[in-house]
Amino acid sequence: MTTSSAAPDQHGSTAPTGGAPLIPVGVLGARGRMGTEVVKAVHAAEDLELVAMVDAGDWLFDVANAGAQVVVDFTRPDVVMDNIRFCIDNNIHCVVGTTGFDDEKLATVAAWLEPKPDVGVVIAPNFGIGAVLLMRFAQEAARFFPSTEIVELHHPNKVDAPSGTAVRTARLVAAARRAAGLPASPDATTDSLPGARGADVEGVAVHAVRLTGLVAHQEVLMGAAGETLTLRHDSYDRASFMPGVLLAVREIGRHPGLTVGIEGFLGL
Amino acid sequence: MTTSSAAPDQHGSTAPTGGAPLIPVGVLGARGRMGTEVVKAVHAAEDLELVAMVDAGDWLFDVANAGAQVVVDFTRPDVVMDNIRFCIDNNIHCVVGTTGFDDEKLATVAAWLEPKPDVGVVIAPNFGIGAVLLMRFAQEAARFFPSTEIVELHHPNKVDAPSGTAVRTARLVAAARRAAGLPASPDATTDSLPGARGADVEGVAVHAVRLTGLVAHQEVLMGAAGETLTLRHDSYDRASFMPGVLLAVREIGRHPGLTVGIEGFLGL
Amino acid sequence: MTTSSAAPDQHGSTAPTGGAPLIPVGVLGARGRMGTEVVKAVHAAEDLELVAMVDAGDWLFDVANAGAQVVVDFTRPDVVMDNIRFCIDNNIHCVVGTTGFDDEKLATVAAWLEPKPDVGVVIAPNFGIGAVLLMRFAQEAARFFPSTEIVELHHPNKVDAPSGTAVRTARLVAAARRAAGLPASPDATTDSLPGARGADVEGVAVHAVRLTGLVAHQEVLMGAAGETLTLRHDSYDRASFMPGVLLAVREIGRHPGLTVGIEGFLGL
Amino acid sequence: MTTSSAAPDQHGSTAPTGGAPLIPVGVLGARGRMGTEVVKAVHAAEDLELVAMVDAGDWLFDVANAGAQVVVDFTRPDVVMDNIRFCIDNNIHCVVGTTGFDDEKLATVAAWLEPKPDVGVVIAPNFGIGAVLLMRFAQEAARFFPSTEIVELHHPNKVDAPSGTAVRTARLVAAARRAAGLPASPDATTDSLPGARGADVEGVAVHAVRLTGLVAHQEVLMGAAGETLTLRHDSYDRASFMPGVLLAVREIGRHPGLTVGIEGFLGL
Repeated sequence: MTTSSAAPDQHGSTAPTGGAPLIPVGVLGARGRMGTEVVKAVHAAEDLELVAMVDAGDWLFDVANAGAQVVVDFTRPDVVMDNIRFCIDNNIHCVVGTTGFDDEKLATVAAWLEPKPDVGVVIAPNFGIGAVLLMRFAQEAARFFPSTEIVELHHPNKVDAPSGTAVRTARLVAAARRAAGLPASPDATTDSLPGARGADVEGVAVHAVRLTGLVAHQEVLMGAAGETLTLRHDSYDRASFMPGVLLAVREIGRHPGLTVGIEGFLGL
Repeated sequence: MTTSSAAPDQHGSTAPTGGAPLIPVGVLGARGRMGTEVVKAVHAAEDLELVAMVDAGDWLFDVANAGAQVVVDFTRPDVVMDNIRFCIDNNIHCVVGTTGFDDEKLATVAAWLEPKPDVGVVIAPNFGIGAVLLMRFAQEAARFFPSTEIVELHHPNKVDAPSGTAVRTARLVAAARRAAGLPASPDATTDSLPGARGADVEGVAVHAVRLTGLVAHQEVLMGAAGETLTLRHDSYDRASFMPGVLLAVREIGRHPGLTVGIEGFLGL
Repeated sequence: MTTSSAAPDQHGSTAPTGGAPLIPVGVLGARGRMGTEVVKAVHAAEDLELVAMVDAGDWLFDVANAGAQVVVDFTRPDVVMDNIRFCIDNNIHCVVGTTGFDDEKLATVAAWLEPKPDVGVVIAPNFGIGAVLLMRFAQEAARFFPSTEIVELHHPNKVDAPSGTAVRTARLVAAARRAAGLPASPDATTDSLPGARGADVEGVAVHAVRLTGLVAHQEVLMGAAGETLTLRHDSYDRASFMPGVLLAVREIGRHPGLTVGIEGFLGL
Repeated sequence: MTTSSAAPDQHGSTAPTGGAPLIPVGVLGARGRMGTEVVKAVHAAEDLELVAMVDAGDWLFDVANAGAQVVVDFTRPDVVMDNIRFCIDNNIHCVVGTTGFDDEKLATVAAWLEPKPDVGVVIAPNFGIGAVLLMRFAQEAARFFPSTEIVELHHPNKVDAPSGTAVRTARLVAAARRAAGLPASPDATTDSLPGARGADVEGVAVHAVRLTGLVAHQEVLMGAAGETLTLRHDSYDRASFMPGVLLAVREIGRHPGLTVGIEGFLGL
């Protein structure tokens, strides 16, 4: 609502939206590409109050002083662990979009949270609600279809192929297929050019298209006798991640401990 | 497995698939377009036994005499109620794909079932698992997207527009939007040719394409800032309904009473 | 290349790209949304030189003084005719993207050009090469398919439905169908909700989807027995119009007189 | 029209469609999968007369005796050359859909045709007009787009990947790109799973999806800054090849000599 550093006790007394107090939010990495979007989105949300914007060179203490209850972190892998540690110590919930988390780092965060049963941290590789729904639906539907393949399509400046989201989706599908006891997808191919049938991710073929003009798109194709079901997500703009970030900001107070991914916040 | 009219007590003693007895199945409307497919599908299923094929002019008693535990009915609106009554009286579960059920008929079936707590009847407007999943996913996802529209595409011999499935999907989406308190889909149109913006089904725009060469297809398009999620179902063949029919045959014994739609059998 | 107002005779002597002189270009409406893109695109093109940027309040004489051989006009309907008149009088070719041209205005421009056999003016409703190709291909293919329908999809702030491009495409398709003697598209619909079958543009059904998150998209669907051919254009960004604008700038010197649309410059 | 073996001189005297004589047609391989469709299609066409149906074991002389002016050959690679030789010797035009022609066989047919300046033979790998149009449009459009990739999607019983049509389309696109002096499609991929980026056909990436439920589908995706153009062909049924076969039957009399592919008959 405002960018002032208003003290937290003020929020209880001002309740413009039907009596519920505003949630005071701090943004770390506020001048980065994603941070800038987060600042705009928090500012525009009627139930949130932007109380601190911090970037490299600023004092982290500002977010505590400003009374932030939730911090959103889109910084860098080399500083994010210090940020999370600071927030947990100061009883501030964290919504983390910074990348580079492996099992070891996740275990460290979980250990830090143990003595703080009221604090929540969510670390999410993808805040796009559409992308999260697509993965969820693919996972639910996979067992009903003998065949599933994935086609992801991106701008040609992308360095990895397939995309991380496509690989993750393929793994979820593969796990669902195994759990249902499905045999391998039928494929009579005997005469093939190298690469034609895509990358094999745990038995799921994944194809990566790179095309000038595209942004970020993914299709999951599932087929059974006489029918196909196709789930497609098109992402045109970083703005598409903001509803997921705001959802996490609103929900994290009700989810103490460590959460990976925002799927659990969608109430599916 | 076989089309013999083997007595039911034989089934308990022959258990080719890992000890589980075959389910004896009768098909009503066996010579119709859908019935023919059902006969083939039951015949090909390893855990089912086709014990009776009945069509207009045949005795309904045959299905009872043959020991059917489940009957599949793809007949006509004017005879289906008698068929269901007969099956319930004879403790035979019913899987019904015949059309024309309104609230009154459903209430009648439910009343017949009351004194028979072990008998199940499922009446489904669509046995296509892909179509059912699409409706379910559209319903779940709708509240996350300010905009939802539906495009259905069919062969040009179809007499109704939009399709019944599209109208049903639109109603499910509309209900989910209302439950979530979403406002109307944004639409700045002020200068429009009649019909351009589709049919309005409870606030959801539905567009019907009719094209030589197509079979039966449906797209649900959902949009939020910077992203869209598209769910598409393509049905090429009546064979696509058989997995849903067989699923219902296998599940109906565990679902006494009246069930409308097979969604509840999918374990979602 | 540069924004200096270098005199035209300089260009003949500097020839960085293989000896061909640069084409000096002026931009009218240079501070508008499209004009800004044109300025960037001309600046970035190795064979063009940006010699004048003019907007409301600037002197039109600047473009002549600066030696522009070609002017690009993205201004407003109420000033564009004066701009064109000035350019023709000064022997400057015009590439016009401003809207609002009717037959009368086109006739006026053609009359002005009569005494100037070396000057060319191209007035184009759409500089997107993809969109122009789509229209061309739809027109060529239409006569081979009993059915053609159009679905256009745009952001929800658009005020007209269907889009001007969709209406134009429908008219081209309708004309091709008439020329080939095709009967009406088959359609057995007898039971329809109002609007379900879209807008009727000379016998071609056109459906307009409006969805948050979308930009500008169009599909032409053509069907014959057992097959469909779909042509789809997705426009994500105003940048997509620039290749067409630059093509027109390079070609207009070879096309004296009045040209409507850039299709003729594509060498198809 | 009829399957009688009416003598050819009858046709000149019966002219039900506006005075034009019927074209007498013979079908070789008449009991095969494609031949059966051809027989039905010729029979249903008002301007053609089915005068002979020949299959393995029948006399080839029958087609000459029956007065066929055009023969359609969907037989086998090991007999098709004899069939063509016979037809040329008997002054019968040939429409050939049988596969297995290499440059040597084509040269042989061309040599046979030299002393017969009035006889035409068309040998086509694909009679689907939609597929032919897609290839033609891809070829025309390719030079306007920095990026082109192809995704083909088929039923899982197909043994070759990519499909012959996709490889042919890729080669046409690659040739058009070379002719226009386009550099390689941009692709920053440095971190890739094997196969993710598809098969490389002369610099054009081709991806092959295999999915239960699908029939035969192909997409050509072309991208430029801010826009993409997608051409998609869906083939659901062998019936889709018949319009192309009938077109060839009607046109071959006006195209003496050897023609490869039906594209030249489309009047594009």
